[in-house]
Amino acid sequence: MRTGDAVPPTSAFILTTSDASAAGMREDASGARLEERLRELGYSVERRVVPDDEPVIAAAIADAAARHRLVITTGGTGLTPRDVTPQATRSVLDYEVPGIAETMRAEGRRSTPLAALSRGVAGVRGRSLIVNVPGSPKGAMESFAAIEAILPHALETLAGPFDHRTAEIARTLRDVER
Amino acid sequence: MRTGDAVPPTSAFILTTSDASAAGMREDASGARLEERLRELGYSVERRVVPDDEPVIAAAIADAAARHRLVITTGGTGLTPRDVTPQATRSVLDYEVPGIAETMRAEGRRSTPLAALSRGVAGVRGRSLIVNVPGSPKGAMESFAAIEAILPHALETLAGPFDHRTAEIARTLRDVER
Amino acid sequence: MRTGDAVPPTSAFILTTSDASAAGMREDASGARLEERLRELGYSVERRVVPDDEPVIAAAIADAAARHRLVITTGGTGLTPRDVTPQATRSVLDYEVPGIAETMRAEGRRSTPLAALSRGVAGVRGRSLIVNVPGSPKGAMESFAAIEAILPHALETLAGPFDHRTAEIARTLRDVER
Repeated sequence: MRTGDAVPPTSAFILTTSDASAAGMREDASGARLEERLRELGYSVERRVVPDDEPVIAAAIADAAARHRLVITTGGTGLTPRDVTPQATRSVLDYEVPGIAETMRAEGRRSTPLAALSRGVAGVRGRSLIVNVPGSPKGAMESFAAIEAILPHALETLAGPFDHRTAEIARTLRDVER
Repeated sequence: MRTGDAVPPTSAFILTTSDASAAGMREDASGARLEERLRELGYSVERRVVPDDEPVIAAAIADAAARHRLVITTGGTGLTPRDVTPQATRSVLDYEVPGIAETMRAEGRRSTPLAALSRGVAGVRGRSLIVNVPGSPKGAMESFAAIEAILPHALETLAGPFDHRTAEIARTLRDVER
Repeated sequence: MRTGDAVPPTSAFILTTSDASAAGMREDASGARLEERLRELGYSVERRVVPDDEPVIAAAIADAAARHRLVITTGGTGLTPRDVTPQATRSVLDYEVPGIAETMRAEGRRSTPLAALSRGVAGVRGRSLIVNVPGSPKGAMESFAAIEAILPHALETLAGPFDHRTAEIARTLRDVER
């Protein structure tokens, strides 16, 4: 199922991917910080924690995107073989929006050169926007801050309506010209 | 067919992808502005408008790349399911040149953070360079301005000749060493 | 074979991809400059020169990554059909680290806009980091300088150990919850 018109554009889902948090061995500080900021911005927020397991993450994103316009994941964007969030995300995206990840890294590098090592991706599934931010509270909040200003426009655009009437006219003209 | 040595390096094609323009419901302002700028830079220019239809765009790019060293598309780089120009472009590229798209977005973000949302790609087909710029006249011209300075070098490099004699010697040595 | 824990994190391999150097027609100036810099930084260094041949480059990278934590390639990142290093590299990567290539190009553009034309990629194979830098000595050294500061952290992270105990607990909890 993909998001329909009924989903409010300010409904957000935060998915924390962390073996330690999923095992109850570490608090989900990044998820809590992201939730706080999203609520300040007027979003209703739902949260979930899953281990760093690619198919589990992919299923959780797909499920969340069916019910929320915005899905933010935190964690699993680093260099090691246990960091699988970008791969899991890409597997359920319809298409990437590379400039969102580029922006988060470019802004992050002003604070620390290590921001270059985040492998996070962003993109669209149905009418929902999915964005990976790093797992550390600092990295998560700095990445989110870098794209906060463009989220309203992105979510409004995705919420449509697209100009299907024009598309139909264009298709008809094309078919006639063939 | 791919471009051969006979195509002048300053021959450019502008492909506008827009349902509204293809349906005759909107003027192709971006295409006109791009043509004007390319002529100022000494390019001969051909233009075409097609609807936002992935296989139609892909075929138009492949056809244009067979006859022109430079193919600029405008439109269809946004977030919605009707924006299919990057997918269509990628399907006919031999390889991407990611730094061109990165540069357009990074320069664009100096003007507006929304530049991060353009999904445009750039790359090579045969000996031709293909570049996606956004559909708005402002976005199109700012993106083009960001890469104007590197186009002569890129097109000269692609026009060759490549050093095939050296490549042959290297291959012969490798085969002898086996 | 992939790198195990026994490989010291400061062991580096420099692979020069150049038809001219492989044919003995040009000195490997970039390889020599990179080796000098890596030795200054405390790395032990091994070097090899291969022609611009995709399967040969891919095999050389895979072989190097089995024995070294860091593999730097120089050459073959340009626009022409003879530039195949990014394709060869991608074919043997487990996953890309796009921010490394973005950083090299973004920093390079401060020196010359032509830095946008490097198609270099970077990523991980096993526990080794592979990075493509351009073939010109200036381009190679500027690209390397842009990422020098993040290499120790990247290589230490890849050297692990990863927290496999936590991963196991998380997996067990997940299986119990099913």
